[in-house]
Amino acid sequence: MRQPVALPHAYRLINHGPTVLVSAAHGGRRDVMAAAWNTVFEFEPPRIGVVIDKSTFTRGLVEASGRFALSVPCRDVADLAFTVGTTSGHDIADKFVHFGIAHAAAQTMDVPLVEGCIAWLECRVIPEPHVQQAYDLFVAEVVAAHADDRVFAHGRWRDDIPPGLATLHHVGGGRFFCAGNPVQAQRLPG
Amino acid sequence: MRQPVALPHAYRLINHGPTVLVSAAHGGRRDVMAAAWNTVFEFEPPRIGVVIDKSTFTRGLVEASGRFALSVPCRDVADLAFTVGTTSGHDIADKFVHFGIAHAAAQTMDVPLVEGCIAWLECRVIPEPHVQQAYDLFVAEVVAAHADDRVFAHGRWRDDIPPGLATLHHVGGGRFFCAGNPVQAQRLPG
Repeated sequence: MRQPVALPHAYRLINHGPTVLVSAAHGGRRDVMAAAWNTVFEFEPPRIGVVIDKSTFTRGLVEASGRFALSVPCRDVADLAFTVGTTSGHDIADKFVHFGIAHAAAQTMDVPLVEGCIAWLECRVIPEPHVQQAYDLFVAEVVAAHADDRVFAHGRWRDDIPPGLATLHHVGGGRFFCAGNPVQAQRLPG
Repeated sequence: MRQPVALPHAYRLINHGPTVLVSAAHGGRRDVMAAAWNTVFEFEPPRIGVVIDKSTFTRGLVEASGRFALSVPCRDVADLAFTVGTTSGHDIADKFVHFGIAHAAAQTMDVPLVEGCIAWLECRVIPEPHVQQAYDLFVAEVVAAHADDRVFAHGRWRDDIPPGLATLHHVGGGRFFCAGNPVQAQRLPG
């Protein structure tokens, strides 16, 4: 079940490097794409970055609206993640309709969140024209976050995540590693 | 065994979002730290970004030399990754000596690569003063790359990676998910 995540904990939803889905809407159009290239920049206020190529339809929506949402997909929706990552809003008027992608309303913006994912970050672009142009990097502040309480609760990832809800980490061509098998490291002597 | 990775394949070594170790050297000092916050920016020429906080000793070495290496740690060296990520070169003159960290010479620069890791990227900073200051982001071009052929061969991650060689994905406090359990996604109909 989707539960709110406190903003100081929001970065933890993508700290471990999952592939994410980027959704955006503007002027009666909406789109969703996949983005393996993303990172956190700051804990609080939570700031993240995601690479959105100039060829994508989503990019125009992000530039026009200054808003996007990240949905964090899991193994159960790997086919969906691959599909939205290999099709374009330039060719398909509405991927949500075309592929029957269930979605929910975001809390703070008119952008669809992808159902079946396990975490969501609602983001407001921090305009950085040079890096947007040179590196396709969009820096953003997270203004609301949510997670499925089967995977993330009380500000932490759970130990007992069902295999189908493991996050996806793209290695290429629709092949993903899944995150699991947690290990607690210890400090070396010295 | 360490083998060269062709530059057009280098981005694949971190495309799936692993935590990395950043090493650098300058003026007789060297250091190594952990960085969960990193991303790819471009396939070819391979460009990546890594967040290096102003408080780290490594940062000064990177700024002075314009060079750094990424070593990609695995489960077998989780304690090492956690240790270099929670200690500072401001307090320890040489972490390699202090913690007995085995290392090898890089191919293109005078920067140590961390042994026991499973992939390595030698990087030259692309100066971007604004994002270095505002977001602690260092953009760099990968100028040489290597990988252990037990995990990555012929430009691809292998299917049969031993559990101890799985990449680490930091979720907080020295706890990591490990990458594994690969899934091949399929395109949805439509």
